[in-house]
Amino acid sequence: MAHDADVIVVGAGVAGLVAAQRLQAHGLTTLVLEARERVGGRLLRHTLSDSVVIDLGGQWLGPTQERAYALARELGLTLFPTYTEGENLALLGGRVQRYAGTVPKLGIGALFDFGSAVAKLDRMAKQVPLDAPWNAPHAEAWDSETLASWAQHTMRTHLGRWGIRLFSEAVFAAEPSEFSLLHALFYIHSGGGFESLTNTRGGAQQDRFVEGAQSLALRLAAQLGERVRLNQPVVRIQHAAQGVCVATRSGATYTARAVIVAIPPTLAGRIEYDPPLPAVRDQLTQRLPNGAVIKCFAVYDRPFWREQGLSGFAVAECDPVHLVFDNSPPDASCGILLGFVEGAQARQMSAVDPETRRTVVLECFARLFGERARQPEAYIDHDWSAEVWSRGCYGAHFPPGVWTQFGRALREPIGRIVWAGTETATRWMGYIDGAIESGERAAQEVLTTL
Amino acid sequence: MAHDADVIVVGAGVAGLVAAQRLQAHGLTTLVLEARERVGGRLLRHTLSDSVVIDLGGQWLGPTQERAYALARELGLTLFPTYTEGENLALLGGRVQRYAGTVPKLGIGALFDFGSAVAKLDRMAKQVPLDAPWNAPHAEAWDSETLASWAQHTMRTHLGRWGIRLFSEAVFAAEPSEFSLLHALFYIHSGGGFESLTNTRGGAQQDRFVEGAQSLALRLAAQLGERVRLNQPVVRIQHAAQGVCVATRSGATYTARAVIVAIPPTLAGRIEYDPPLPAVRDQLTQRLPNGAVIKCFAVYDRPFWREQGLSGFAVAECDPVHLVFDNSPPDASCGILLGFVEGAQARQMSAVDPETRRTVVLECFARLFGERARQPEAYIDHDWSAEVWSRGCYGAHFPPGVWTQFGRALREPIGRIVWAGTETATRWMGYIDGAIESGERAAQEVLTTL
Repeated sequence: MAHDADVIVVGAGVAGLVAAQRLQAHGLTTLVLEARERVGGRLLRHTLSDSVVIDLGGQWLGPTQERAYALARELGLTLFPTYTEGENLALLGGRVQRYAGTVPKLGIGALFDFGSAVAKLDRMAKQVPLDAPWNAPHAEAWDSETLASWAQHTMRTHLGRWGIRLFSEAVFAAEPSEFSLLHALFYIHSGGGFESLTNTRGGAQQDRFVEGAQSLALRLAAQLGERVRLNQPVVRIQHAAQGVCVATRSGATYTARAVIVAIPPTLAGRIEYDPPLPAVRDQLTQRLPNGAVIKCFAVYDRPFWREQGLSGFAVAECDPVHLVFDNSPPDASCGILLGFVEGAQARQMSAVDPETRRTVVLECFARLFGERARQPEAYIDHDWSAEVWSRGCYGAHFPPGVWTQFGRALREPIGRIVWAGTETATRWMGYIDGAIESGERAAQEVLTTL
Repeated sequence: MAHDADVIVVGAGVAGLVAAQRLQAHGLTTLVLEARERVGGRLLRHTLSDSVVIDLGGQWLGPTQERAYALARELGLTLFPTYTEGENLALLGGRVQRYAGTVPKLGIGALFDFGSAVAKLDRMAKQVPLDAPWNAPHAEAWDSETLASWAQHTMRTHLGRWGIRLFSEAVFAAEPSEFSLLHALFYIHSGGGFESLTNTRGGAQQDRFVEGAQSLALRLAAQLGERVRLNQPVVRIQHAAQGVCVATRSGATYTARAVIVAIPPTLAGRIEYDPPLPAVRDQLTQRLPNGAVIKCFAVYDRPFWREQGLSGFAVAECDPVHLVFDNSPPDASCGILLGFVEGAQARQMSAVDPETRRTVVLECFARLFGERARQPEAYIDHDWSAEVWSRGCYGAHFPPGVWTQFGRALREPIGRIVWAGTETATRWMGYIDGAIESGERAAQEVLTTL
């Protein structure tokens, strides 16, 4: 029986492209069907008028993300460190303070409260098996409450809890009320610990791509050539013991011996499957919502804050921006502040008009970095919840009860359907590195099956 | 411009059919597109070989559900009371005990614990505005934790907490870990209080339909005649200021001045909208999963338990069945025990083979009602999570953080798209009565808009 390819891959993000690359390397033919007019999924580069590249999507690599560094090397991409010289800023209780190191001067009570909570989280996280979080010693109890209620009962200070909220927004693009304590612990373990997730130098925000992170996908796609088909939203997957037939919105159909679905779980749940998927799989994808983030960039003639001894990094009780980074290009040919609008703030800002969004974001920048920050040469933002083929970032989170009741269905292939995407990774779930792991695993599963 | 109808309704459940009926009564033309080969949605009658009708889906009405009683009267349907004579059974701690009234003999400590918790829930529930739960006095705190973590911190006894779990399974078909305290409180208020939700006589399980509850939908559909089209799964809704164009899987398209989407939120989220819906609406439907329930019926020559002074009602720590009702027909021409497999148990039982499911369910019946219960004349069960066009029952529940962050998007029309379905009701959300309320409101919104 003649197929269009040995394996069809749904989604030309890093996960899907890596899967296709590995399968091709093993001599199988692939066909990658991508809904968008571009590859890269949640990675998206944008070239400013002066040919400076910014990442509207995922952008960082950090220590222990060996797969991501290896792929970057393999594809000839260049990394450079996120700027971290100088002091950071914190806007807390209406006052701006400068601080060195990773934690602002919260006062001794809040510092102790926050530090104790982080130590507890790290200690519990180590007990969560990455391939089976439901087997953690207190899995059911940890999955019965939210990170917010845990913090409410465990912590004593407003500022300490605010630190946990900032962590939640920065890492999950969600509020601590939205996911279970067990998911928080899994994710901390998956990313190598609290500091590994949150630090810039020595952590997940350490390095950036000169060419933009999307270049990972662009170069993989270039290798695959015509095997990648754009503008092909998959609407239906018919599957049987012998193979699959994948239909796109335009009515085109493609057959293969197996299919790898490499898109976020909530979008995978919108595809029609024939025969229908088992109840537990369908109910899983009803329960893995995406976080919400708007990345906001203000471009200045130069990184003027550096002249004042500032790193450009800031944490702020300043709605809608709670986190700011210096995102200038490696040669500092211009200065770029990157503000994150995440979780609840992203939902509110998603609904307001672009002009208002610009104004309130720049107001936060000005409160932190002075009036000069209010007048950038350019401003651009990107709302990932409005992107139809992502519908949120950075990734999916697991509300209470989901890991323990539905976790087993996350990676388990269903006949000739195999699941990929960073949400299916064990290490660095939610990150580029996790996407690569998932693509490699999915390719391996297909090779074993066929 | 000629349209196929003034208003298209997606979904021929009670909500959609009521909306269509009301619009027709106001002189508008409608077209009801139903994915299944039948009407009724989560209501489904089944005729046993001896012409006894059983409800595989929703089946009960109770006091204060005035809309449902009125519709039943209007359509000429006949109600009869759920059988409640005699004593109930409780299987707790490995022992079966008989009890009268609504609460088993838990021991004084557990009784007090459970009673206090219920009183607290009722008191807090009254403070939740039904049209805007996010405006409750402690909305953010109540939406930051699960019902399970609230019970963990508030209650002191294992049996008391087990009572809350039974409540959660019986009313939400979900575990108390899966939804927020705020949602539990909203739902309790929406259904008129804890006892109103849980009681048989005087509560939501009081009355049954002689003809089966699906007859509500069957008779409404008969009135609408050819305006109801079966086997028409809607895959895409194009919408503009002037009207809508609705496409079905077969490629047929229908135009109208407005559309009412009257299906569960998670399924509404799987339709493609053009232009795409606002981020907050899409993220809402990512976050409203359905509960899980398998209804299990064992049919005997007569309701033999009645001869022993038993009502047939039982609560049981006996996996997978935690709740049993006498579901015999009004003339008791045969005896029917109805066991509910809900929440976590439903997920596990969904995956096992039918023969095993039958065996373990009948084992529970036998432990409660004696060996005779192990040998029914017929056994039938129905897994609502496996139904492709429901994907769970009884309804959707709201995980932590959803009401406060996304609740406003639940009912708000988007241009010419109006939302219906029991999940959009303020009173008796999740019930037939709520479905009718939602259909009436949706019809009114369309009338106001056009």
